[in-house]
This record gives sequence, C-alpha cells and structure tokens, in this order.
Amino acid sequence: MSLTVYRKAHFNAAHRLYKEGWSDEKNLEVFGKCSNPKYHGHNYELEVGVSGVIDPETGFLMDFKILKDIIKEEIEDPFDHKNLNLEVAAFQNVNPTVENIAIEIWNRLRKRLHAKYDISVKLYETPRNFVVYNG
Amino acid sequence: MSLTVYRKAHFNAAHRLYKEGWSDEKNLEVFGKCSNPKYHGHNYELEVGVSGVIDPETGFLMDFKILKDIIKEEIEDPFDHKNLNLEVAAFQNVNPTVENIAIEIWNRLRKRLHAKYDISVKLYETPRNFVVYNG
Amino acid sequence: MSLTVYRKAHFNAAHRLYKEGWSDEKNLEVFGKCSNPKYHGHNYELEVGVSGVIDPETGFLMDFKILKDIIKEEIEDPFDHKNLNLEVAAFQNVNPTVENIAIEIWNRLRKRLHAKYDISVKLYETPRNFVVYNG
Amino acid sequence: MSLTVYRKAHFNAAHRLYKEGWSDEKNLEVFGKCSNPKYHGHNYELEVGVSGVIDPETGFLMDFKILKDIIKEEIEDPFDHKNLNLEVAAFQNVNPTVENIAIEIWNRLRKRLHAKYDISVKLYETPRNFVVYNG
Amino acid sequence: MSLTVYRKAHFNAAHRLYKEGWSDEKNLEVFGKCSNPKYHGHNYELEVGVSGVIDPETGFLMDFKILKDIIKEEIEDPFDHKNLNLEVAAFQNVNPTVENIAIEIWNRLRKRLHAKYDISVKLYETPRNFVVYNG
Amino acid sequence: MSLTVYRKAHFNAAHRLYKEGWSDEKNLEVFGKCSNPKYHGHNYELEVGVSGVIDPETGFLMDFKILKDIIKEEIEDPFDHKNLNLEVAAFQNVNPTVENIAIEIWNRLRKRLHAKYDISVKLYETPRNFVVYNG
Repeated sequence: MSLTVYRKAHFNAAHRLYKEGWSDEKNLEVFGKCSNPKYHGHNYELEVGVSGVIDPETGFLMDFKILKDIIKEEIEDPFDHKNLNLEVAAFQNVNPTVENIAIEIWNRLRKRLHAKYDISVKLYETPRNFVVYNG
Repeated sequence: MSLTVYRKAHFNAAHRLYKEGWSDEKNLEVFGKCSNPKYHGHNYELEVGVSGVIDPETGFLMDFKILKDIIKEEIEDPFDHKNLNLEVAAFQNVNPTVENIAIEIWNRLRKRLHAKYDISVKLYETPRNFVVYNG
Repeated sequence: MSLTVYRKAHFNAAHRLYKEGWSDEKNLEVFGKCSNPKYHGHNYELEVGVSGVIDPETGFLMDFKILKDIIKEEIEDPFDHKNLNLEVAAFQNVNPTVENIAIEIWNRLRKRLHAKYDISVKLYETPRNFVVYNG
Repeated sequence: MSLTVYRKAHFNAAHRLYKEGWSDEKNLEVFGKCSNPKYHGHNYELEVGVSGVIDPETGFLMDFKILKDIIKEEIEDPFDHKNLNLEVAAFQNVNPTVENIAIEIWNRLRKRLHAKYDISVKLYETPRNFVVYNG
Repeated sequence: MSLTVYRKAHFNAAHRLYKEGWSDEKNLEVFGKCSNPKYHGHNYELEVGVSGVIDPETGFLMDFKILKDIIKEEIEDPFDHKNLNLEVAAFQNVNPTVENIAIEIWNRLRKRLHAKYDISVKLYETPRNFVVYNG
Repeated sequence: MSLTVYRKAHFNAAHRLYKEGWSDEKNLEVFGKCSNPKYHGHNYELEVGVSGVIDPETGFLMDFKILKDIIKEEIEDPFDHKNLNLEVAAFQNVNPTVENIAIEIWNRLRKRLHAKYDISVKLYETPRNFVVYNG
C-alpha cells in the first residue's frame, strides 16, 4: 500500500539571478529584472512529498512531526530571511533559480530521509511560477 | 486520449489517533496531542481523480454530476459531522490517520467506479498536511 | 496615521452544538447534524486585527512576533487539539458556536493587549462559514 | 536531472455543452443546465507544466518569460473574453467540455514547444472541477 | 454584542457589458473586450455578511443553514448557468457590471432578511476584481 | 449608492528592517532576523479598494482597467524586483516595514485618484502577516 504524505513549509529570502563570468549586459539580457544587482526576494512556498509504505502498527507512513522538524532544520532555518546568493554556500557558484533551489532542497532532504522513501519537492517562487523535482 | 478529471469535496469530522492495546502513555508518546482521548477534529478537503478515456460522443470522461453524487453517498454522507473512531465501522480497529482515511475513501470509490477507471485520492487533514493514494 | 495589522493563526478542535436543558430532539431540530453527541470537528482559521498608531521610531504598529506569541498562548495552546465543550472552561455553559468562539477569543486578547489598540477577530469554522467580531 | 516547471494563466469565457444532431431534450438530459442555449461562463484557471532537463549554464529548464508569452499567444489571446462555441474554430464541431478544452490547449502548446519537452495541462473550470491532460 | 456572520456561495454565468443606445464602436471603446456581443463568462464568488445581535439561547446570530438556503433561492438558482443579460430581468435595462450585480444581490437579500440585520455583499468577478456593497 | 471596487496586484522585492543611528545589536534586538544586513524578500500581495458612487451611465464606479494601469505605474513598476531600502527613495530614511510600505502605496495612489474617491490599501507581506491602511 504505497502512498505519499505531503507537508507544506515556507521561507522568505532575497536572491538575484546571475552568471559569474558574463557581463552585466549579458546577465540583464538573459535574466531580465531578476538580475538586479541589489537583489529582490520571494515568499517561497514548499511542499515536500514522501512516498513509501504505511506502518500497519501506527497507520503512519512517517510521523508528520518528524518530517516537519527535518524540513525546519534542513531548509527553513538555513534559508529563511537569508540572501541565497551570499549566505547559502550551495549558491555561491550555482545560480539560485527556482529550479536549482528545488534540487538543493531535494538533495538536503535525501541525506536525512531513509532510502526506503521516495522524495518529491514542489517549490513555488510566486503563486504563478513553480517547479516539481523528484530526483 | 487518457485524461484525469478531478472533483473536490469536503467533510468535517472528529477523531483521535489511538492504538488499542497500547498504554495511554505509549499512545501519547507516539501520537502526541492527536491522541487526546476527548477527540479533536478537522475540515477534511478531498480531491478525487478519475483517469480514463474520453467518450467521443459527449466529450466527457465521466459526468461530474455522477462523480459528485458518488462522493456524496460514499464519503460525505457517512463521514461528515461524525466521530470517525466511534461512528465509522472501518475505523473501529484501524487508526484514523489521514493515511488510513485516504485508503478507506479509495476502497469505497473503487467499489462504485467501473474497473476501466483508475482512481486517485488526495486528502487534506489541514492546509499543511495531506496525502495522495492511488491504490 | 491609524492602521490595522493582521496575523493569521489556526487550531484544530472537536465540538458539538448543544443547549443544556433542551431535549435531544430539540437540540437536533435546532442544531441539526452539528448536535451529534459524539462530536465532530474543524480546522479553525483565525485572523486577528490590531488597530492603532504606528511607532515612528520602529515603523511598527506592534511587533508581529509579540502578537504571534500572545495568540499562541491565549488561543492556540488552550484550544488546539482539544474538545471545546469538554476541555475549555468558557464553553461549559456556553454553546461553542463559531459566534461564541470568536467572542471568547476577542475577550482573551482584550486582556492581553494595551487599551490603546482596537481588536478585531475573524474566525473561519469552514472555508465557507465565518464570523467577524470587533467587540 | 529531469524537472517540471509550471506557469499559471487564466481566461474568462462563455460556452455551452451541446451535441449537434441531438434534440434539445437529449442535450438537456445529458448536459443539464450546462446545455443552456443562451450560454453560461467560467473563469478558467490554467497550469501548464513543461518537463525536461535544466540548462547548466542558466539554471533554467526554460525561461518562464518565454513560456508565459507562448501561453498568452496560443491560449489567452484567442480564448479570453470569447464565446468558445462560436468564436474558437476548434469547438465548432467539438463539444467544449473542460476535457476537450484541455486537449485543445495541449495540442496548441505541443506545436510551439520543442519536442524535447513533455507537456502537462491542468485546467480548472471551477475551483471544484478540473482536469489534467498529459498527451 | 454585535457581530457579522458570513456565508460563501458561487454561480457561473455569461454576460456582456453593453449600453443600449450607444453604437457598437462606443460600447467597444468604453467596455473593451467585455463588450463582446457573443458574451464571455465568469465564476462569480459571493460572500454575504449579516450583522446583528447573537441570540443568547442558541449562540447563533442566524442559522447558517437558513442563510445558505436564502442565498440559494434568491441568487444561485436564478443566476447560475444563466446569461445575465438575457435571462435575468434586472439586467434587461441595467448593465451587468460587477457593481450592478452586487447591488442586485443586496436588494434581493434585503427583501428576505429581517430589518434588524445589516447586510454586506462581496462579489468576486475574477480572483483579481471584486466589489463590496453595504447598501 | 456608495460601493467599493477592489483590484489585486503584486510585486516581489528585497528589504531589511533597520533603523539608522541604532547599533547593529539594537537593530537585531528589535527587528530580529528581519534586520539581516544582506536582505531577505517577499512576494507582496496588494489589494487596492476605491470607494465612491457608481456612474449610472456605465455601471462602473471606475474602470478596472484604469485602476490596474495606475497601480502598475505607481506601485508595480517602481517596486517590483527592487531592493526597497536601496532603490525606492521613500525608504531611504523610513524603515520599510509592511506598515510603512502600505502608507507609501496609499500616498502614491492618493495623488493619482480623484478626491471624490476614498482609498484603502491591504498589503500582505506573507500569507500570514498583513496590514490595512485607509488614510
């Protein structure tokens, strides 16, 4: 009886889209106003899905409380109220597009969740733009 | 041309998480405040998906009205404004976690919908915690 | 420069609508399925508004963090995952309709917030039924 | 690293459900109030998903701006504030059910997006009724 | 203890904005694509507020069930799946702008609700455009 | 027949909360993680309300299209994808709390809308924190 449980979380952060080695003109041409050197920001809304088999004893796939705490430790604490380009090591050399942020989130959760679980990450950058990454 | 139609529904119910045979301390340790013996409750929001082939004559996969009525008879009428532990037979010996409620809903719909359709059940226990079950 | 700041919160609780001294038939007639003696429940969504004057030094009407903590202490901790009829003293002799719950919330906040502030309480019992109370 | 990006869009349109060659009674019997000959309408909410591989240079799967513009040209401009039965050629002989509208949207996008991308279309006819079509 | 209870409802309808006596060019100039002679449509979302004093015996301002039924009889049944210009008498000579529809709704409810209640009508034409009318 | 029309808009921006003349420790103590010198950001969601009398000829209080354009020129264009502290002159010496941003928005709209209209501004900094300012 495979099933997926989902937990929502959120963090507010600043970022800019920028490729090192490109001129400012080239960055502006490709990334538009998202390349603003003084940064802009978003309320990122996150949905983490964990797929697996239900424990017949508890009726839990996994305890939502534990999942909530892992998301807090791995994602909310290090990302919330931060400048992603300047304060999250993963984005020193990786452009913090919503695609790359979703992959980074997936990688962080993968290290913390048992291999028996599959993981999916849905990340809203705005209410209109979002991505899904399943590894 | 396979496609999925979705219909939303909802019911408000009381429940507690509880495993018969465990001590109250053990139940509290595993289920936390959800094990409150005097119950708590939720507005459950349900999305039922039905996948199949479109009828070229009507342009319907299935009539939303019929799907709505089946959900009402099988889920809303028996679950709404009920105490799931005490008043729904399926949860007499099965812990009414959101995972187990989703499976029960899927099983009830499976009996009513033609075998040519695949069924998916998404069930929100809160706006932040939800599950998906596809059988 | 009067302005209102709002903070959202939520709690999940069981209740029933019931008037002591009325027969079961009378309770059922007036309160319908909400009078179920075995309880049902809701995800209550709460919006608290605080009106007043901005502190020119900080640019805050009041610190959202402080408001959040007061709501947690006064409302979420005592109401969340509780049976309102059985476990909240205010509803021992008062019917826990959404109207009466909103008034109880307002009264609790009134005691904790400075008299210079006006308070409004919006309380959703379901996404379709809600009330506003301003004292 | 396969991933899906999603973009939301919307259009407001009139339609009726109707099968040419059937009597008015038969249309009413099958399509109910949706067969009203004088039309009714909806705010259609659309989510387009595009799956593929991230460009390691930009960190984009595809530029959201380009996706937004394609959706505007192919869907919003021709469908918004239109009568689907009378003013969209695809629905001259095809019943504009939400299923058929989703398929038409998918077909239009398929012609504009590179074959390396997979496409999914989620279309809400109302907040309670929606479909997903993946080709 | 004055308080307001709110009930949500919805209806799907076709309309066009149009002033009799103006030329088609003038109608197009003033109302833009909303003047399309073949109609377009919306999912109208309605929130009705009723203000008054709580009945101390029941804890109700008014029974949500009664309010729901009045909204169904006065608004949903006559407006849902209709062409507002052609099928609702009130809009034969009155332009069915969201402003005028809100006023018509308010007038219909005013006749059905006791004079001791104040009424407010919030009407969404789209998720981005809405009005509030309090009489 | 006084009525209010509302239009939603949004902008994504970076900011920090900071009082010039206070030490970093004092700023951190008062503004917490919102004082991060490297900025964070939000998706600000804005609802502008305009109250007045309906034009009996058009049925409009004011044309939503004109209101939309004014909001774009006065708020979205200058604020979207900007660093509020560094790139919006109004916040050079004024702390960009959500309270102060709402007041600045109101002031900008006041200059553009006829004195016969009353204006209200609702501004969400996050889905959980928001303000209303009516001048």
